Amino acid sequence: MLSQADNEFLTQSGKGTPMGELLRRFWMPALLCEELPERDGPPKKIKIMGENLLAFRDTNGRVGIVEPHCPHRAANLYYGRNEECGIRCAYHGWKFDVDGNCVDLPTSPPDSKFKDTIKLLSYPVREWADIIWVYMGPREHMPELPQIELGLVPAASRYVTKKWQDCNWVQSLEGAIDTSHFSFLHRVLTTDAAEARAAMSKAAIADQSTPNDRIRWVQNDPRPKFTILNHDAGLVIGGARKTDGPDLYWRIAQFLMPNHAYTPAAFPGETYWGQCWVPVDDTTCWIFTYCWQPERPFSNVERTKFAGGFNVHAEVDKEYMPLRNLRNDYLLDRHAQKTESYTGIVGVSEQDAAIQDSQGPIQDRTRERLGPTDLGIIAFRKLVMGAAQALQQGEEPKATGAADKYAVRSGGWIAGPERDLAAVMTERFGHPHGYVGKLYGLGD
Amino acid sequence: MLSQADNEFLTQSGKGTPMGELLRRFWMPALLCEELPERDGPPKKIKIMGENLLAFRDTNGRVGIVEPHCPHRAANLYYGRNEECGIRCAYHGWKFDVDGNCVDLPTSPPDSKFKDTIKLLSYPVREWADIIWVYMGPREHMPELPQIELGLVPAASRYVTKKWQDCNWVQSLEGAIDTSHFSFLHRVLTTDAAEARAAMSKAAIADQSTPNDRIRWVQNDPRPKFTILNHDAGLVIGGARKTDGPDLYWRIAQFLMPNHAYTPAAFPGETYWGQCWVPVDDTTCWIFTYCWQPERPFSNVERTKFAGGFNVHAEVDKEYMPLRNLRNDYLLDRHAQKTESYTGIVGVSEQDAAIQDSQGPIQDRTRERLGPTDLGIIAFRKLVMGAAQALQQGEEPKATGAADKYAVRSGGWIAGPERDLAAVMTERFGHPHGYVGKLYGLGD
Amino acid sequence: MLSQADNEFLTQSGKGTPMGELLRRFWMPALLCEELPERDGPPKKIKIMGENLLAFRDTNGRVGIVEPHCPHRAANLYYGRNEECGIRCAYHGWKFDVDGNCVDLPTSPPDSKFKDTIKLLSYPVREWADIIWVYMGPREHMPELPQIELGLVPAASRYVTKKWQDCNWVQSLEGAIDTSHFSFLHRVLTTDAAEARAAMSKAAIADQSTPNDRIRWVQNDPRPKFTILNHDAGLVIGGARKTDGPDLYWRIAQFLMPNHAYTPAAFPGETYWGQCWVPVDDTTCWIFTYCWQPERPFSNVERTKFAGGFNVHAEVDKEYMPLRNLRNDYLLDRHAQKTESYTGIVGVSEQDAAIQDSQGPIQDRTRERLGPTDLGIIAFRKLVMGAAQALQQGEEPKATGAADKYAVRSGGWIAGPERDLAAVMTERFGHPHGYVGKLYGLGD
Repeated sequence: MLSQADNEFLTQSGKGTPMGELLRRFWMPALLCEELPERDGPPKKIKIMGENLLAFRDTNGRVGIVEPHCPHRAANLYYGRNEECGIRCAYHGWKFDVDGNCVDLPTSPPDSKFKDTIKLLSYPVREWADIIWVYMGPREHMPELPQIELGLVPAASRYVTKKWQDCNWVQSLEGAIDTSHFSFLHRVLTTDAAEARAAMSKAAIADQSTPNDRIRWVQNDPRPKFTILNHDAGLVIGGARKTDGPDLYWRIAQFLMPNHAYTPAAFPGETYWGQCWVPVDDTTCWIFTYCWQPERPFSNVERTKFAGGFNVHAEVDKEYMPLRNLRNDYLLDRHAQKTESYTGIVGVSEQDAAIQDSQGPIQDRTRERLGPTDLGIIAFRKLVMGAAQALQQGEEPKATGAADKYAVRSGGWIAGPERDLAAVMTERFGHPHGYVGKLYGLGD
Repeated sequence: MLSQADNEFLTQSGKGTPMGELLRRFWMPALLCEELPERDGPPKKIKIMGENLLAFRDTNGRVGIVEPHCPHRAANLYYGRNEECGIRCAYHGWKFDVDGNCVDLPTSPPDSKFKDTIKLLSYPVREWADIIWVYMGPREHMPELPQIELGLVPAASRYVTKKWQDCNWVQSLEGAIDTSHFSFLHRVLTTDAAEARAAMSKAAIADQSTPNDRIRWVQNDPRPKFTILNHDAGLVIGGARKTDGPDLYWRIAQFLMPNHAYTPAAFPGETYWGQCWVPVDDTTCWIFTYCWQPERPFSNVERTKFAGGFNVHAEVDKEYMPLRNLRNDYLLDRHAQKTESYTGIVGVSEQDAAIQDSQGPIQDRTRERLGPTDLGIIAFRKLVMGAAQALQQGEEPKATGAADKYAVRSGGWIAGPERDLAAVMTERFGHPHGYVGKLYGLGD
Repeated sequence: MLSQADNEFLTQSGKGTPMGELLRRFWMPALLCEELPERDGPPKKIKIMGENLLAFRDTNGRVGIVEPHCPHRAANLYYGRNEECGIRCAYHGWKFDVDGNCVDLPTSPPDSKFKDTIKLLSYPVREWADIIWVYMGPREHMPELPQIELGLVPAASRYVTKKWQDCNWVQSLEGAIDTSHFSFLHRVLTTDAAEARAAMSKAAIADQSTPNDRIRWVQNDPRPKFTILNHDAGLVIGGARKTDGPDLYWRIAQFLMPNHAYTPAAFPGETYWGQCWVPVDDTTCWIFTYCWQPERPFSNVERTKFAGGFNVHAEVDKEYMPLRNLRNDYLLDRHAQKTESYTGIVGVSEQDAAIQDSQGPIQDRTRERLGPTDLGIIAFRKLVMGAAQALQQGEEPKATGAADKYAVRSGGWIAGPERDLAAVMTERFGHPHGYVGKLYGLGD
């Protein structure tokens, strides 16, 4: 339970808010690379953390992310001409490059110094891992790109897309690191594990290959015991469920500062999944969803499956709007809810979206009642709110100096009851935090 | 004319407002019984007096009306599972019965006492007269259900539905107790009474059987003389028009605290009509419309007529939205307004809605100019505002202790000019206030 | 660049705001005459400068513009009956004439004096030049109608329509008196003048008959030198561009107080064009667009061309909404923007609308950077803000006493470099301010 003030502190992302300033110390996914496919192609209006911006790819292939209004008379450069290494305002021909420099100002004489006084606000941009990243914080504090494994594997071994969501980013992220809800929200109604696997596969929740045991253990134990480990880039969040014997079935997620989360299911050889939440404003967000395979390229069959909505990938239209969303009540089927699945909604991503949106545009945390299965959420809030408070006091976030430490994995494991989370992680990943950077030539 | 402060006092229904608290001392129609037809069927989102609520019918047929958000993490129980005598949250399986008790809390151990500390806000519910009623006030002041005759007659002798309206509830109710507007708003253009009757029947305003005289008298006298009688449950509002001789044609409405009104037309043997206004918020409301026949069941022909829109029943779609409404300008036909009816709008209910909505989302009463034909409105305001003020001082409304006194009728009569309203009522109904409770075994 | 306070001063038009009071000292186009074609026809809801009003044409053909709500109980007279020289409220039959007098009040006895105390707010109305004009200021300051030439030529020689726009009226007007943007916004991509003329004709920007030279000169000189002349009714705004020799190509606009502007292109014998901006509220406006031919009637071919969108006339639907507008992104064609025209938007009016709307609902002028080509805008602001400030001090605007001085023309000319604007105007129009009132029997 948070006070109203703390809830606002946690959920507001606008410029000048404490959490907004924390978020602005990190690289943010702004667009998918595929959204600006063409040099000198159409510019694209975007909104990030309440800031309206314009993105365009110039003649040389560089991407600019700039304020949209021309400094002259505020015409929107969206209507401008993207040509010859700059965006030119359609009103009077003022032209700016991706760095915001005014490179032509035809309404003043060529020898005028006026042009040198004109500057368009521009944010640093990187393209990496099929994502266009933007840094919206103070230049002197700009960190390295976070070395998530998605960007370290070959392009053929990753799949990245995004999906719209109609709620504050925090409650959606909190849903992702709360791995206890798998015993409910995503379950199917049959108690036969093989039938359940088939039903979950049909509903785009789990793979055909998921062993029956794991499904049964998740269904049967609604109270995983949580352990949290802090590391430089975030949190390891382990939830241990009972198995048929003395062993524990661990499902271990990662939270990476300030807005990534990895899912907890992957066993060795399976696909890894992550999401990154980017506030559009305080009541809507883009969720960048991604998966990668460290051992092999994805097949076309797999890519087709992802494109149709699977696991955290939603089934989206050309504008990345989920086909099942708030406006059509997620195509909730009450008959299916009686006979097939816990929610009557198709898709793990869509089930998440429905329940997260239903918490309200911004969840009222002054009335919540957290319990032992919510330990991950509590640790997440402590970490990000603490970092935002520290930043208010002038202390830069530790994670911005630990870009390499983002090279971690999350996943599942079965271990003896005597093992603690660090030991389980070491057994599963060779490192207590799941660090795999050494595979890619990063440091220890 | 009211001050701005008095207008807000009169029209605001939110929790904690004076009129909102008065309304919350009475049973409110929340839904039609037919809207929750099925045990363990889909729950339904509703909003009453600004409060978002969830209604569901449990395995035993009982209806619960509860706050929609789960106390755990605020997920909306609308997405939950209505099963085995309770609604279960889809997020983590917390389950609540119709009284708001937490009956299962699977994320805590079975022996945990945590569950006993969790409660979902729930309001008392009754089903009566084909209506699901809810009481949203303090439990210690919960009254008996108002014994309106609608609920006393056999089910076969009543017809109940509802309609949406796009304005504050008060101005719509004021339109219903203002019986003088029948000389204008609902008139047809012919001055031949037989033709008028045919036209009014066609426009769903009056019955084919309405005698020509009554139609002519209403058309011819736009200035009925009003008399008001107070009784324990509300007001008798009589308007007397000239006839062809010395007699007066009385049309007598009832206002019943705090939000019912009965129409003034019924002669003995005819059908009785009433409406009840339930604020959704301060600029929209549901109007529950009902009619009953104390002497016989309604025929199927009559029910079909009501369902198609007749008298105060609007012609509505499956969501109870009038087919002719604000968004389509009530299908106002300017040619028909020149040649057939005063408004060019079909339906007495729709004519009322058009003119009431047109007063604004909340009528600005600081500029109105009331005259002698507005006496009923003035008496209504005095009664409800006085009761709300008294309640602020700790005095419970008299009508909450007079549930039996709601068993009244309203209607028309022709009487000699020497008779006052009480005498006319006694002649017409056998009681000066139209009380008929004795027919049903209620007290004197 | 303006302060935030000055920007609000300039752009707010509501009753009681300084600029709103200035605007209310002048006759405003309220409707086209064709919008109220019929005596006793349907009344029409309109909104001007934030005031909701109702317009109707009575039995005698007179137009009334009145407050929409009946003084009795605030029912909207829009639902009323327009008949026998007045509009009658549908609720209780109160009736008002075009001057707002209560001419019937049937709910009071015929001999009651109550009727004499009832008045409906009504504004003076004129019909002239195919436009219904309204005066919304104090009666004692009501000026003569501005004698724009549009109203002085025969009806066969003028064409008047209107178009909706989704931004504050000021920035749209500022676009019209900024004639420098023709070198950019409205250009076509070919540099061959004959091809350009063909392309501009196709895109409804210029006539087939426009000489190649003028098109080339506008394309080639993006920095016209501006000169401004003040006169009693407004401003002459001249922009001089280089030609192929020593001569200058002048394009000269007129601004007429407080909200008209004339385009700068017409050579002798060509059509003259003007626009008048009427705020609906502070973020939308109607632009009345008009053209006239002092020398001859318009042909049907010309009228058809205007109706399809040409020059400042937009291509509009039956409600005067431009077919290419904010809601469909002006049907911007990115391919055409690469290959045909500067914007990829068809129509000079639509190009203007796109760029003006893009400045925001109300342009933020605190960040603009004006240069030498913006002198006309600076002079406009100085004039209207000065007049609004003077009015606050009790000084009536000079232009209200100069109705005849509106009989001016604007247009183009080629003149030797030694000529100043007054000399060029005299050469082109016979008068330094372009005054042509003497042709119509007005004074010197």
